[in-house]
Amino acid sequence: MVGGRQQRRTRSGCPVSISLEKIGDRWSLLIVRDLMVRGYHSFKQFQESGEGIASNVLAARLKRLRAAGIISIENDSLDGRKLNYRLTEKGIDLAPVVLELLVWGAKHEETGAPCDVIVRMAQNREQVLAEVRRGWGKRDPPPFLPPFQPPLGHVEGRKTRAIERQKRKQR
Amino acid sequence: MVGGRQQRRTRSGCPVSISLEKIGDRWSLLIVRDLMVRGYHSFKQFQESGEGIASNVLAARLKRLRAAGIISIENDSLDGRKLNYRLTEKGIDLAPVVLELLVWGAKHEETGAPCDVIVRMAQNREQVLAEVRRGWGKRDPPPFLPPFQPPLGHVEGRKTRAIERQKRKQR
Repeated sequence: MVGGRQQRRTRSGCPVSISLEKIGDRWSLLIVRDLMVRGYHSFKQFQESGEGIASNVLAARLKRLRAAGIISIENDSLDGRKLNYRLTEKGIDLAPVVLELLVWGAKHEETGAPCDVIVRMAQNREQVLAEVRRGWGKRDPPPFLPPFQPPLGHVEGRKTRAIERQKRKQR
Repeated sequence: MVGGRQQRRTRSGCPVSISLEKIGDRWSLLIVRDLMVRGYHSFKQFQESGEGIASNVLAARLKRLRAAGIISIENDSLDGRKLNYRLTEKGIDLAPVVLELLVWGAKHEETGAPCDVIVRMAQNREQVLAEVRRGWGKRDPPPFLPPFQPPLGHVEGRKTRAIERQKRKQR
């Protein structure tokens, strides 16, 4: 079967469904976010962005995003042997989706995002989106948003819990 | 391990990441869409909405959406033995995310959505969102958007292809 596993069935003609076929998973939009607002552009930076993505999953997602025309690869302007990922026009057009996920998450979940930052972003959607797009156009923009810290009392990974247990023992 | 598999680790404090932990998959937002704009509210309707979701996957997604406080269950007003799904306040707040996925998909992919409908929606975001929310408040609104037909030349499922082959044989 040629291309049988690569070629996914389009489920319906609904654009929401077709969009979710491209980016409907737990990781793709985080890579888009990293490219969009953090100024990350290398495999290593995505891997170390604090989400704990496995390298094989990251590699698969990058491949899929490239196949979908959401990201492209280009040579580093200073070191020609280095390859950088970059959002395409189609990729930067995902900015409103990422922004709405940010606003929704900050409103309804316990996150590490400062409320005033989010309220300002939600109130100035158009301005924020224009700024993000302007940064993308400049090719090497400063980070637009820093990584947020995990919220207090969040469910921690095993490693952190183990450290906590050890600390308690030492008290 | 009590609740070990249910309890997912929060990856970072970023609201985008936390949102994707709740709805970052290929199906959850389609259920939300069905509740939001099509007036669907039963398991059977979700299952027959043209996306080909398997019943076990649908059941799992409904359970997760309920656990996340995005949907609730209530008794049917006419037949008390029947249960209906309904978006919560948190669920209807996903309307901007669904709308942006719709606009992005329609702009960049081959879909079955009529261009003029999408352009009008993209140009009147606030009005569209207010209308969707108003319908939700009314509890039993008429469908806001009909299902879109698959685009011409889309990749069809095996079953459809098999039917086509049979038809050709019969000619």
